[in-house]
Amino acid sequence: MRTELCDRFGITYPIFVFTPSEKVAAAVSKAGGLGVLGCVRFNDPDDLEAVLTWMDENTDGKPYGVDVVMPAKIPTEGTAADISKLIPQAHRDFVNKTLAELGVPPLPDDAERSAGVLGWLHSVARSHVDVALKHPIKLIANALGSPPTDVIDQVHQAGVPVAALAGSAKHAQRHVDNGVDIVVAQGHEAGGHTGEIGSMVLWPEIVDALDGRAPVLAAGGIGTGRQVAAALALGASGVWMGSAFLTSAEYDLGHRQPSGRSTIQDALLAATSADTVRRRIYTGKPARLLKTRWTDAWDAPDAPEPLPMPLQNILVSEAHQRLNESNDPTVVAMPVGQIVGRMNEIRPVGDIIAKLVAGFEEATKRLDDIRGN
Amino acid sequence: MRTELCDRFGITYPIFVFTPSEKVAAAVSKAGGLGVLGCVRFNDPDDLEAVLTWMDENTDGKPYGVDVVMPAKIPTEGTAADISKLIPQAHRDFVNKTLAELGVPPLPDDAERSAGVLGWLHSVARSHVDVALKHPIKLIANALGSPPTDVIDQVHQAGVPVAALAGSAKHAQRHVDNGVDIVVAQGHEAGGHTGEIGSMVLWPEIVDALDGRAPVLAAGGIGTGRQVAAALALGASGVWMGSAFLTSAEYDLGHRQPSGRSTIQDALLAATSADTVRRRIYTGKPARLLKTRWTDAWDAPDAPEPLPMPLQNILVSEAHQRLNESNDPTVVAMPVGQIVGRMNEIRPVGDIIAKLVAGFEEATKRLDDIRGN
Repeated sequence: MRTELCDRFGITYPIFVFTPSEKVAAAVSKAGGLGVLGCVRFNDPDDLEAVLTWMDENTDGKPYGVDVVMPAKIPTEGTAADISKLIPQAHRDFVNKTLAELGVPPLPDDAERSAGVLGWLHSVARSHVDVALKHPIKLIANALGSPPTDVIDQVHQAGVPVAALAGSAKHAQRHVDNGVDIVVAQGHEAGGHTGEIGSMVLWPEIVDALDGRAPVLAAGGIGTGRQVAAALALGASGVWMGSAFLTSAEYDLGHRQPSGRSTIQDALLAATSADTVRRRIYTGKPARLLKTRWTDAWDAPDAPEPLPMPLQNILVSEAHQRLNESNDPTVVAMPVGQIVGRMNEIRPVGDIIAKLVAGFEEATKRLDDIRGN
Repeated sequence: MRTELCDRFGITYPIFVFTPSEKVAAAVSKAGGLGVLGCVRFNDPDDLEAVLTWMDENTDGKPYGVDVVMPAKIPTEGTAADISKLIPQAHRDFVNKTLAELGVPPLPDDAERSAGVLGWLHSVARSHVDVALKHPIKLIANALGSPPTDVIDQVHQAGVPVAALAGSAKHAQRHVDNGVDIVVAQGHEAGGHTGEIGSMVLWPEIVDALDGRAPVLAAGGIGTGRQVAAALALGASGVWMGSAFLTSAEYDLGHRQPSGRSTIQDALLAATSADTVRRRIYTGKPARLLKTRWTDAWDAPDAPEPLPMPLQNILVSEAHQRLNESNDPTVVAMPVGQIVGRMNEIRPVGDIIAKLVAGFEEATKRLDDIRGN
């Protein structure tokens, strides 16, 4: 399973994996794919610096990348405390009432309070870029489209290509016009921020719209080798995966249960493909989330409209921490794609990748038979 | 491009095309696929009888099928006039106000008024089955899932297999438990009644859930040979298409403009993949429609909630007639899938099929290169 991206990145398989876990990112790179570490959780650049140093020491020289979150429109800047003042009291009351109704315990007195995700402030995302470029990274991806052109220039000057997510052909073309090197075509099925056009329609549409100006990574709905084969048949040069590695054995983020799994992993393992919703309640922009009693509460008639980015995530940041550190899988707050229906066991990253490759081979053999070879 | 369905149905390609036009259905069958004539528009069984007689005379003995619409739950029965009494006046007022605001002319005095689509009444759909079984049909499909088991038995006794649409693995399994022979796995991208799970996730999920008990036709988002290749790579035994043939040269339904195209065709040719919405406003159940000023009006804050099936369609049936017989493509009411973004020219059915086959070949050759053969 080789495309031009294998030579370009020095990888065995054109499988790019976005993950917030450095353990997973390193394991992906060592298994022949490209691990792409999500930076948005690092409010303090020093924490990112430490984690990338760990990556350098634990990837056996294999290539890896990072993912930042810069909205196309520059949102409200400021410290969490400043921004927090913009949140209406009625929204805070709804969150508190909902947590009480769901029986979610408060954080322990000694727990570190999350200040909310600030990684999508331009200032913080820029610090991520600055830190990342001091490491031998092979890719910077932006989860919300084109970064500002001066950031693209900065990254290019370091000899690093830029990838950007797109949910429409128009956005993909604009990204490439701005200097983006690789487009991640993310279909409606995907976890996190996602548009309305399904992968089956979106991927070839973006491939054709770019007409060779940039390679396309297919994202949204990929968890098996058959789906990898479909993506490559549709004209993608590789795949971009995320959700499927949240239940990898190496994934060590989140509140652990006695089983060794996190509360979130228990929730993911139990979910079907129908158990996701696409809502603005996580960040202020439409993102696909695991459907839980928390998302249900925001669908109730008394729920307020979500706030714009970045206010919404600051509103719910402590709530997310409380929900996800509870022992109740029915209340977690977690972005995930519709492929969650196929995430039914905890497996090592190496096994997941090997199964993808084997499934790709099987799917193409099936096509040989259909073609009459 | 041959699967087991080619032998079973005596067709050259496993391409099944649902269409309300007998001209298109006949052309598909003559081009090597299986044309499946939608019956829902025939309120009078005699009209269906006449059209199927035409099919028998114009398909050169090639196999064809029919599609009926039987909801799983038996809806309110009765004549259009009886049912009409259940419609609130406020809904009628909204429709009239909207038509006025959109500048839609009334029907000419001599125009035949549509009574609304009654085809999804069980009594009418049963009459479609009775009529169809008098003809040499090779398939009866039900657009809303399993028909009642006595209908399945009736069709089987005539030696005809039954297909049923499914938007989830659970529904697909239930259909096969009920005796359905072929499942049409219809993803979120599809036109008309459609669920929330995207094709990329849904198709292989249904294939695996059925585990060989019934072949799967992939529906939702197919308009190119690459998408056919993707569907077959994902485990489908064939494809089920609809939207892509609404802009075929043989499609002769609808109000014609001087150009020879219908108002609806002009609207479809102009639309992008982003120009659809999934709403209950057409039938009372969620259906993907072309986004127009008509659908926008139903999204406005003053719009009422759509009525349940079959009331909603009776409410809007004359409005649909007026909208679609106007000369304004920006107001039409028309189900279509996201593949509408690729429907950019009027082409003969034979050309569409030939291009699908060639595109499939190209996509599989691309996979050969990636696989390293």
